[in-house]
Formats: sequence, structure tokens, C-alpha cells
Amino acid sequence: MKISAPLFLWIKKNELFLQNTTIIFKKIYFNDIIRKNRGKECLKNMAVILDGKEVARKTRENLKSKVEELKKKNIFPKLAVIMVGEDGASKIYVKNKSKACEELGIQYEEFLLGDDITQKQLLDLINTLNNRKDIHGILLQSPIPKHLDINEAFRTISPEKDVDGFNPVSVGKLVLGQETFISCTPFGVIKLLEEYNIKIEGKNAVVLGRSNIVGKPMLQCLLNKHATVTICHSKTENLKEITKKADILVSAIGKPKFVTKDMVKENAIVIDVGINRNEQGKVCGDVDFEEVKNIASYITPVPGGVGPMTVAMLMTNIVKAAK
Amino acid sequence: MKISAPLFLWIKKNELFLQNTTIIFKKIYFNDIIRKNRGKECLKNMAVILDGKEVARKTRENLKSKVEELKKKNIFPKLAVIMVGEDGASKIYVKNKSKACEELGIQYEEFLLGDDITQKQLLDLINTLNNRKDIHGILLQSPIPKHLDINEAFRTISPEKDVDGFNPVSVGKLVLGQETFISCTPFGVIKLLEEYNIKIEGKNAVVLGRSNIVGKPMLQCLLNKHATVTICHSKTENLKEITKKADILVSAIGKPKFVTKDMVKENAIVIDVGINRNEQGKVCGDVDFEEVKNIASYITPVPGGVGPMTVAMLMTNIVKAAK
Repeated sequence: MKISAPLFLWIKKNELFLQNTTIIFKKIYFNDIIRKNRGKECLKNMAVILDGKEVARKTRENLKSKVEELKKKNIFPKLAVIMVGEDGASKIYVKNKSKACEELGIQYEEFLLGDDITQKQLLDLINTLNNRKDIHGILLQSPIPKHLDINEAFRTISPEKDVDGFNPVSVGKLVLGQETFISCTPFGVIKLLEEYNIKIEGKNAVVLGRSNIVGKPMLQCLLNKHATVTICHSKTENLKEITKKADILVSAIGKPKFVTKDMVKENAIVIDVGINRNEQGKVCGDVDFEEVKNIASYITPVPGGVGPMTVAMLMTNIVKAAK
Repeated sequence: MKISAPLFLWIKKNELFLQNTTIIFKKIYFNDIIRKNRGKECLKNMAVILDGKEVARKTRENLKSKVEELKKKNIFPKLAVIMVGEDGASKIYVKNKSKACEELGIQYEEFLLGDDITQKQLLDLINTLNNRKDIHGILLQSPIPKHLDINEAFRTISPEKDVDGFNPVSVGKLVLGQETFISCTPFGVIKLLEEYNIKIEGKNAVVLGRSNIVGKPMLQCLLNKHATVTICHSKTENLKEITKKADILVSAIGKPKFVTKDMVKENAIVIDVGINRNEQGKVCGDVDFEEVKNIASYITPVPGGVGPMTVAMLMTNIVKAAK
């Protein structure tokens, strides 16, 4: 586009306006200028896509050299994965994890247990793995059959090998701000925000969902980074009013198109932790991406956003456990 | 007061108006009517005072019979308190706790350690107490001298005897919604709300302060009771805007008159966890009580609010530990 004189330029709130005589022909957000400087999409009112796939790739790349160093010291990082029964989604998740291990040179051992295993058998296996010196991380893939007590199983995993961060000791230490294994998904969200130099301190962060695996540790991670955090859930009464105030909005609800444009503040940072299937059977998140990307300043896609980060942070935890 | 006809009556928002010809002579909050039915102060625009002293007394009364039952089974509940160095405030707190133990027939043993104790000596004492079968609860009074690692000390207290709920295991279990010892102050706040039949579910709760001892477990307790919870702290940027939305406002900041009338929503429930000294040297909370009581629906006084509840819940935890 060629600009003919006279040209006027002014700033209002967070926006830069250019005017050619009487027609305002460009509205530029400062954020967009910043984005341009980072070589990202710019000069249009669309969110920066937080490329979890790429950040995860870089994270794994960094870990690769750390694994090499450990091997030179005769430490061979190894993950043990326990799966009980057959669950389609679990199989995919576990496959992604084993692939990542293979890529990084992390050893991997899988324990497939039948549906009819007893609680004692499960705990015995965990205790055996706790005592095996060659194993640095233990992961119990959920869900497990309902006759088993998964909480007791998580409690049995040694905190030193609890690479998923689900043992109460890990959870408690995260709350208390002590060194621990952080649950991989929230850990990945923080890493992603940090890689894009997104400031968390002082921001209003809203977490949708209060699961033990995502919502609650996400809240803690954001609080530890000095955000003002609100946690919402099924009993929340005025949801839209709350989400509208969020500078950082994290959705971990598990419902396609749950987060719509009218729930999002202009220029918010939108993190989509949901992994759902839409009507066409395609993987999608909780956020109405096509709509919300036009109002957010940053947004994670699904797939390719938080998912790959989760696996990358699991690898980070395994390497940490092996050190 | 005698009412002469004609009398008009109408309802606007949450208020009931009576009008005698042209003069509105009574503005009655529905809440006040509810209060009247509970035999509390009524028909004036002032908050119900949440009488922590009285609820604590009743709680201790209930515990007394439980202690008697335990004694019949040859279980003699016993608390061990560790104090390191001399701290004026700590002495008062510890004295209150020992008095409550005495009242309930709970045995009590105090360990006063010098300022110059080593970390190893402190941990050795904790381990000795962990192993002593006659002791059911262990309490390490904070603060302790700075050369000692209080977190490591809390981690060393056996989760089975952690009546203060400061061990990461206790903290983690609270987060995960599992049976555990709950930190006494937040536990006391919940008990107080419940005794007054105050609904927590679905309410917007705002916690001011994110200490490990009060703010963070308070957040968890309110979340476990299905409130939508926001946690604010020194980095929070738009504090008043947030507190103004709170149906339940809990302040644990430690600054006299920090919470002023303009920060409080009409008919909010205001819980004051602060224990400060005002300019006259008198004990006061975080809340400007005289101002805020005219706008809140319920409010805790300081002293006589949360303080006695904290001690009562400690007693509750000791009895639980002894069972």
C-alpha cells in the first residue's frame, strides 16, 4: 500500500492511528509492533500464535545435550511407565512420551497391567520401581480402572521419581514455593509464556477448571510467578464477568468452543489446555480459536500448543530426576 | 414506633422500604430479617458480628467429651510444642494453646530451645518426638532463628503428627481434596462460616495475602467448598476493583486499617485474620472495623474472631491425631 501525503499519526490508549486526510486507514496495536520486532505476524489485528510445537522442539533439543552429559557420567536416564487396562487416548499419550524419550536418548520401560490387577499388585510394582536404581522417573498413566485407588498409587510413587508431580509431597512443595517436580502441563504453560517474554507478574490470571492435574497446579504456578489468580469451575456463577477481566486466561475445562469471543478481554493472552474432539471428530481445544484469535494478543492452537509442551516438560523432569 | 396509615411498602434490589405518606422511615435489609430469625441483631444496617470466641468455646466443649472418650480407651492425647529462642508474640500464642490443652484435658509438653541450636539438633528433637508413642501432635512455633531452615523442620514433622498442617504432605493433600490436617487458621474460618450457616458454594471469595500459613491454605479451603476464589497479594495491581466484587473477603495482610469501606461490596462477609497493633498499642485486625461493619453483612472482630477459632481448630486436630 502506497501512502499519499498529508499523513497524520496519533496515539490513543494502546493504539497507533495513521490518517490520510480524512480516512483512518490503519489501526496498529503496539503489541503488533512488538510482534513484528520478534519477526512474528504483524500489522494486523490477530493474535500471535504461541507455537508450542516449536518451543517444545527447542526444549527437547536443549535436553538432548544434557542427556549426553549425563551419559558421560555413566548416568542413563530412564522412565518407567505404568498403564492399567486399555484406554485409547492413554495409548496415544504414552506413545508420544515414548517417542520423545527415544529422540532424547532416554531409556524407557513400559508396564502394561491387566484390568483385573489388585491394588496391592499395583502398589507392589510401584514399590519395586521405587527401589530400582536404574529408574529415575515413574509415571502412572491415568485413567486406571475404578476398583483401584489412584490417589494411593500416586502417593506411593517416591517423590524423588515423581516426574508427573502428582504425589502430595510434590503438590505441597509447589504450593509452598519449594523445589519440586511441577505437574507437566502447567509447567509447560509457564515455559511457553516465558519463551515469548510474556510478563506474568501483576497480571490478572483466570484459570478455568480445578482438576488436580491441570487447574490447581496451574493456579499455583501462576501465583508463584506473582499473578493475581482467580480459579473458576462448574459452580462459578458469573463466569463471563470474570473471564472478561483476565489478562491471562487458561482454559482446562474439556469442552469444545467453551471459550467464546465475548468471554475474552481485548488483547488477552489465551491458553487452551483442552484436548477435545469436535463434531467432525477433529482434535480441538476449549477455545473457539477462529473467533478468539481476532481479539486475543496471544493464543495457543490445539493441536500444537500446550500438548507438545506437556511432553517436553515431562522430559525436563526426567532429566532433572536423573541428575 | 407506631405506624399511622396510609403505609406503603416496596422492594428494591435487596431492600425492603416502608413509607408513611412521604417519608421513608425504614430501610430494612432482607439479611437483617434473616438475622432476626436467628435471634441476632436485627433491623439495623450493621453487620452481624461473627463471634469466634463463642464458636470456639462450643467447639472446645464438644472436644472435651471426645477427649474423655479417648481416655476411657486409654488414649491420652498429647501435644508437643517446640519453641526456639525468645519471641514475645510466640510466647502469648503458645500460652493460649497450653491453656486450651489444659481446659480440654490434653497433655502438653513444651520444648524450649536456645537461639544457638543447630539444624541437626532441631531435626533430632523432631525425630525423637515423631517416634514417641505418647505424643500425638507436634507443633513448631514460628518464627525460629534465621540460621535454621524452618521448611526442612516442617518437612521432618511426621504427617501423622502434623497438627499445624504445614508439612508439604498435609498441604498437598489439602489441595488434592484428600483427608489431612488442615492449617488451623483457614480451618477455623471455614468452621466459623459454617456455624453461621453462611453459604460458600458459588460465592466470589477473595483472599488478601498469600502466606503459606494462611493465604494459600485459605484459598484451598474455600475452593474445596466450591467458592470461586481469587488470591491477591503485594503485586496485585487493581486491588480495590477485585475486593469490591468479593462476596466473601478474607484479609491476611497484617496491616491495620488496610481494608477500608470503599474496598468492600455491600453485604459482603468480611473475615479479618490480621493480628496487628494500632497506634495506641491495642490489638487490631487488617479491617477498619468501625467503618466496614456498616456495609458488611457479617464481620469478624479482632480480637474475638478468627484468633480463638485458630486455637480451637488446633485442639480439633490434636484430638483427630490421637484417634
